Amino acid sequence: MKIQSAPTIRRMPTYLHQLFRLRMAGREWVSCAELAEYMNIPHIVVRKDIAMTGLPGNKRHGFRVQDLIDAILRFVGWDKMTPATLIGAGSLGAALLGFTDFQAYNFRIESVFDASDEKIGHEIHGHEIYDIADIRKRLKTAPPKVGIICVPAVGAQLIADILVSLGVKYIWNFANVCLKVPEGVIVQREVIAGGLAVLFAKISKAESGETITAEE
Amino acid sequence: MKIQSAPTIRRMPTYLHQLFRLRMAGREWVSCAELAEYMNIPHIVVRKDIAMTGLPGNKRHGFRVQDLIDAILRFVGWDKMTPATLIGAGSLGAALLGFTDFQAYNFRIESVFDASDEKIGHEIHGHEIYDIADIRKRLKTAPPKVGIICVPAVGAQLIADILVSLGVKYIWNFANVCLKVPEGVIVQREVIAGGLAVLFAKISKAESGETITAEE
Repeated sequence: MKIQSAPTIRRMPTYLHQLFRLRMAGREWVSCAELAEYMNIPHIVVRKDIAMTGLPGNKRHGFRVQDLIDAILRFVGWDKMTPATLIGAGSLGAALLGFTDFQAYNFRIESVFDASDEKIGHEIHGHEIYDIADIRKRLKTAPPKVGIICVPAVGAQLIADILVSLGVKYIWNFANVCLKVPEGVIVQREVIAGGLAVLFAKISKAESGETITAEE
Repeated sequence: MKIQSAPTIRRMPTYLHQLFRLRMAGREWVSCAELAEYMNIPHIVVRKDIAMTGLPGNKRHGFRVQDLIDAILRFVGWDKMTPATLIGAGSLGAALLGFTDFQAYNFRIESVFDASDEKIGHEIHGHEIYDIADIRKRLKTAPPKVGIICVPAVGAQLIADILVSLGVKYIWNFANVCLKVPEGVIVQREVIAGGLAVLFAKISKAESGETITAEE
């Protein structure tokens, strides 16, 4: 299954973050032009992105900030609560647990598991860390919709197998390995070094004399 | 500047990770078919990805593991050493400092800065944390090529301004804000929640009855 509009979808959290800031500042309206300037992308791209959410604009004022927030949340599927579990409370797992925008996305990490005695029983950003040995017992009655895998690469497949056996259908995988899962299970692999590779591609273009814009 | 082959480039760290594992296991050759099965993508995609690195294959055996590693490192620009500095040694910064594949990419984080008294002077994964107040003094004689911004969104623009003023030309930005930088400076923005949005798009497709493959 290919997501055709992936770049649009990937920009949504960045729009949201800026819209939250505008809302906090008491702003009622925002224009395409203002968002385009903020995002450093062409006006027409912003217009198309917003059109995908189905929200009609107002010729004079642009978009109501709150309406646009609601439209984006609905478009992405963040308008209803999604329970999740996170496995691996190392640095990366801790970073995700501290990511405050998840609340605004109605994305709720309800349980956190780790294998390390130093972590089990402790709290990170208000989440108690459970023993991975208890995962079946804790999740069997109500498996969360999404499993987030933040364990080292070598253990990721085992964790995926456990999650799938518990009925978790959607996996957000931060281990730099490709997981084998049965049909019907969806994996989104997050390779942070992928962004570094893209940065290097831009660097080598820039150094070979191509015009550089500060595009993000 | 748009990178046309971004999906190919983004897959390179995942190929590399698997190739390192094969090399560790003493394997000399690898085929497109094997990599395609591992990555869970069509054979032809792997063939095109490898063709972009310029490495010719062997009809019978496929590709020499070491040659393919070298070709990918050269293709991405990871065949020569790149010095970097990291600002913000929170959970996410710590995760990046612990990312061992960076060594294989010749990507060397040579200095780490933070503003917190609890971190300054301490070590994370062998990196001493310096006081952000000393950044100009420490970096002015030899500015690193890449600056990695891992500070909270509210402080990211200030850090970017400092890095640019010191002569840093390339910024890997993990704060979910769009930075304003002068012409000639390139920013790669890494929005981790972007991947979550793509996962949700896949979920809503799956739940509306579209065929699901376990594509990563």
